[in-house]
Amino acid sequence: MKDLTEMYIPTYEDVEAAHARIAPYIHRTPVLTSSYFNDLTGAELFFKCENFQKAGAFKVRGASNAVFGLSDEMAAKGVATHSSGNHALSLSYAAGRRGIPCHVVMPRTAPQAKKDAVRGYGGIITECEPSTTSREAVFAEVQAATGAEFVHPYNDPRVIAGQGTCSKELMEQVEGLDAVIAPIGGGGMISGTCLTLSNIAPGVKIYAAEPEQADDAYRSFKAGHIIADDAPVTVADGLKVPLKELTWHFVSNHVTDILTASEDEIVDAMKLTWKRMKIVIEASCAVPLATILKNREVFAGKRVGVIITGGNVDLDTLPWIKS
Amino acid sequence: MKDLTEMYIPTYEDVEAAHARIAPYIHRTPVLTSSYFNDLTGAELFFKCENFQKAGAFKVRGASNAVFGLSDEMAAKGVATHSSGNHALSLSYAAGRRGIPCHVVMPRTAPQAKKDAVRGYGGIITECEPSTTSREAVFAEVQAATGAEFVHPYNDPRVIAGQGTCSKELMEQVEGLDAVIAPIGGGGMISGTCLTLSNIAPGVKIYAAEPEQADDAYRSFKAGHIIADDAPVTVADGLKVPLKELTWHFVSNHVTDILTASEDEIVDAMKLTWKRMKIVIEASCAVPLATILKNREVFAGKRVGVIITGGNVDLDTLPWIKS
Repeated sequence: MKDLTEMYIPTYEDVEAAHARIAPYIHRTPVLTSSYFNDLTGAELFFKCENFQKAGAFKVRGASNAVFGLSDEMAAKGVATHSSGNHALSLSYAAGRRGIPCHVVMPRTAPQAKKDAVRGYGGIITECEPSTTSREAVFAEVQAATGAEFVHPYNDPRVIAGQGTCSKELMEQVEGLDAVIAPIGGGGMISGTCLTLSNIAPGVKIYAAEPEQADDAYRSFKAGHIIADDAPVTVADGLKVPLKELTWHFVSNHVTDILTASEDEIVDAMKLTWKRMKIVIEASCAVPLATILKNREVFAGKRVGVIITGGNVDLDTLPWIKS
Repeated sequence: MKDLTEMYIPTYEDVEAAHARIAPYIHRTPVLTSSYFNDLTGAELFFKCENFQKAGAFKVRGASNAVFGLSDEMAAKGVATHSSGNHALSLSYAAGRRGIPCHVVMPRTAPQAKKDAVRGYGGIITECEPSTTSREAVFAEVQAATGAEFVHPYNDPRVIAGQGTCSKELMEQVEGLDAVIAPIGGGGMISGTCLTLSNIAPGVKIYAAEPEQADDAYRSFKAGHIIADDAPVTVADGLKVPLKELTWHFVSNHVTDILTASEDEIVDAMKLTWKRMKIVIEASCAVPLATILKNREVFAGKRVGVIITGGNVDLDTLPWIKS
């Protein structure tokens, strides 16, 4: 792992520049409220709906900032990543808008639906074997052959500054928030939230929500240093990745607390959101609501922003339906 | 069936009065757009999202208008209906807001989930046997015992005037529409749409969308008189009921055309809406999109309002997942 001193730490000016840069390519997503969930939690909840975002997730903010921040010369060689999730879709979307190639290295064993989705957004897939060794080797080959710029899903200052535009919008849309809560995986969204709020609304508490079964951020936070899990298993599949030095910097300095929820609590909160709010959200974005329901005393009487991070769900295999 | 001459035909003034009356109890629902569906259809689609409405469906508009239009003396005796769908939920919700009883006669064989939903909104259920004879007998008993006012799900001028507030809002929210399309079952929403548009936007074409397997309105429209189906079977379970004299009046006078879609086309359009727009919609509201996809030449290049009528779905049994 790199030392933090080797990395650029983004500032709030970077968030403002990112917002101006990406505005033509992203949605200013709506904030929804639900009297049902307000009654249930005793809090006033404001759901920032990034499931309605372009490419179906907040990740398009950071990806677009990285893509549109490149010089023409660098951009011409394209961008590359080795995610198979929302970051790959988002980077493919952003690259498509700029008219440059996006290379995505994915295991040949990845679900066909994920490959189709990346290709649907114009991504160029190079398959590797399902191992870290193969992935790194194939990725190095792709980069060497193309000169494409690597855009990490979260441990990248351009990406974190882009994600910070989400809570910037939220603060413009809702007055008087006491707290903001978002899911935590690698920590990109939470880091962007920390970056923005610590600058423009330092009194607002920041909570991160994590699956009990992938609670590396929780344990890192309590221990005071990064602890990475080995292949955690959770329905919230966007939250399996570990913190890295740049996101750890923001988490360790600005997060108020990290709360966790069990698999059943996550699935119940996800289904209840679909049922009552009529929106399709990923399991990952149900983790904040699950932790609010579980820690009622922390949030009751408060105005709480809840970041719904994405809506890219495999509708054929829903976690509450046994096939 | 009553003759139309025995019924009051609502006017646009009734729609305006309804809107003022129900405004405190309903949402002014958002209009969503989707670049994906615009590309797919060649039209510009504006989705009026009544799935986000109170009680999860547009029916709360008509039900609230009926409930809040009652004199205090009549209201004290409550309201009654014999629906087991969204009208029952909506009438229970509206009655609850006014603080009066809502009696719902339902077959004892109705799914527990539907009974729970009605009770969740405060409705008082009286069970009958699953036959028309029993339902009518039990309903007559309930009315005799309570004096409650019967509110028909659609063949009622108060209900139609209430439903007309939906397209009134849509016309305020979107400029320059060429057409509006909505699903048709008993014809309450379409009649309200006809009532409003024929008065304030007579140049806007009105299309009704219907399942092929419950195409009584289509056949009525072509024949020039009401044809009722005997127990049609369709995934769009809100659209099984037949037209009645008041809704037939509006349909026969103001609808441009009725378009139909197969069961597979409806389920595909429903799933595609969930997948791409990230909203939970009923099968019934996917029928308009299914017919737009099927009749591309009718809508291409046009600005089209699409009424998404509701989002009350049994999430445990989705039509594209075989259990």
